Amino acid sequence: MKIKKAVIAAAAPDQSQLPFQSLIDRSGNETTALKLIVEEAIEAGIEELCIIIQQGNRESFAQATSNYKVELIEQDNSNGYADALLRATEFVGDENFLHLVGDHLYLSKNEDGCARQLVEIASRENCAVTAVQPTRESLLPYFGTIGATRIVNESQLFKINRVVEKPTPTEAEQELVVAGLRAGFFLCVSGMHVLPASFLSILQGEFDQGIRHISSALDKLAQQERYLAYQLAGTRFNIGVKYGLLRAQLELALSGRDRDRILSELVEMLAQQSIQDDS
Amino acid sequence: MKIKKAVIAAAAPDQSQLPFQSLIDRSGNETTALKLIVEEAIEAGIEELCIIIQQGNRESFAQATSNYKVELIEQDNSNGYADALLRATEFVGDENFLHLVGDHLYLSKNEDGCARQLVEIASRENCAVTAVQPTRESLLPYFGTIGATRIVNESQLFKINRVVEKPTPTEAEQELVVAGLRAGFFLCVSGMHVLPASFLSILQGEFDQGIRHISSALDKLAQQERYLAYQLAGTRFNIGVKYGLLRAQLELALSGRDRDRILSELVEMLAQQSIQDDS
Repeated sequence: MKIKKAVIAAAAPDQSQLPFQSLIDRSGNETTALKLIVEEAIEAGIEELCIIIQQGNRESFAQATSNYKVELIEQDNSNGYADALLRATEFVGDENFLHLVGDHLYLSKNEDGCARQLVEIASRENCAVTAVQPTRESLLPYFGTIGATRIVNESQLFKINRVVEKPTPTEAEQELVVAGLRAGFFLCVSGMHVLPASFLSILQGEFDQGIRHISSALDKLAQQERYLAYQLAGTRFNIGVKYGLLRAQLELALSGRDRDRILSELVEMLAQQSIQDDS
Repeated sequence: MKIKKAVIAAAAPDQSQLPFQSLIDRSGNETTALKLIVEEAIEAGIEELCIIIQQGNRESFAQATSNYKVELIEQDNSNGYADALLRATEFVGDENFLHLVGDHLYLSKNEDGCARQLVEIASRENCAVTAVQPTRESLLPYFGTIGATRIVNESQLFKINRVVEKPTPTEAEQELVVAGLRAGFFLCVSGMHVLPASFLSILQGEFDQGIRHISSALDKLAQQERYLAYQLAGTRFNIGVKYGLLRAQLELALSGRDRDRILSELVEMLAQQSIQDDS
């Protein structure tokens, strides 16, 4: 399986400024959320990139991606995530593709980036693969969640049986428990997938029935063909939530070249504050 | 002295995205750097606000300030800070004005915001006042620095004798030592001033002689009239420098409603990292 195309969904109405948020990367260089996502894809071997954006955002995205070869596609309504992704149907053609979302960043624990890990698994296993992350039960209302069977001798790989959009804790406990995870943890979809072109046909069918998320189409995919989940050697950050950017910046800084500097600034900051509290 | 007008300089070419950076304020609400600056001015009693912006940025600034009554003035060249400020000459007219810069945020230690503290001092003392912050010698290359005499019985107030743009340590030690500061510290201008309309005439004169910063015009002001420096009860953040946004967000979070949450997330993050380092 070759994966040369990537589709980034960045059209959510509440996220128009998110891709342009400034961050310092692990090497200490200034970058933006969007650049980190684009480079995540390029480092995974992607040659053709398309970003689905809100109508009216073309100019700012074109400026921010001027160093990369990127096709920008505008979503001219607010029909949600599934509709946004369907805008890439022509771009995808009949090829497999990497799919990323514009409000998630990844921090790999090893030399390969997270997207590269995923693309390599998909190539080796020759099937669709979704990145998942063990997630506390309390966070289930935010994510698509999978039910899956662990693959023998593969600590990070699972065969997906079910995908459920934002399950209740009861649903999750009845249908989505994955053997070997810590109690109260489930495998949640973490915004990164390698999918076949045929997925977009399934998604179109679900969308035509009024479904706005992509989980039910992923569930259908799992019923039709071998479809794996990969637990990334890394961390996923949802930068669209409150303090998400702070958390991402802190993790980048604390796992990068400037770790010592940031640690000592943190300690100094806390010390200054307690001096002020005492005075 | 009444101060009803404010001029915010946000036209620096390397800062076009800075005002739109997302932050969580002390109350836990999502905001942007620009909104924090505008609200700093409004809380100080400002009724008429103008922002000097780069040419081409009108649309994004208009969108970001749509909830406020703000005049946007474009700087149609890259002639620097003094030129940008001079664009406000007509707006200022013959009134005193508060001047803020678009890459600095302030965190007050008491109930009044930093700009409000400054405006009240200027009203009471009936003269120009510049906010200053004791700053390590190593940071002198980044700031205008003042030479000043402490005012008797006023721990935070100084009479300005000199203003020097980015002095060398030798210059600073010879001419800018202020009695009572910690050794190796100087009073640096921290991006917030109350100035008379006549300052813009002085600035125009200096600009016509090719000077692009505002420190030499401030220095001339100090020779002509009583001009004070006020050491803010608060902290200034330069968000235009590396990790400036991270530091500002951390200080906001650690001095606000979400302090406990952020502190425990920090500890958890550091603990997780050391678990990974050990494994």
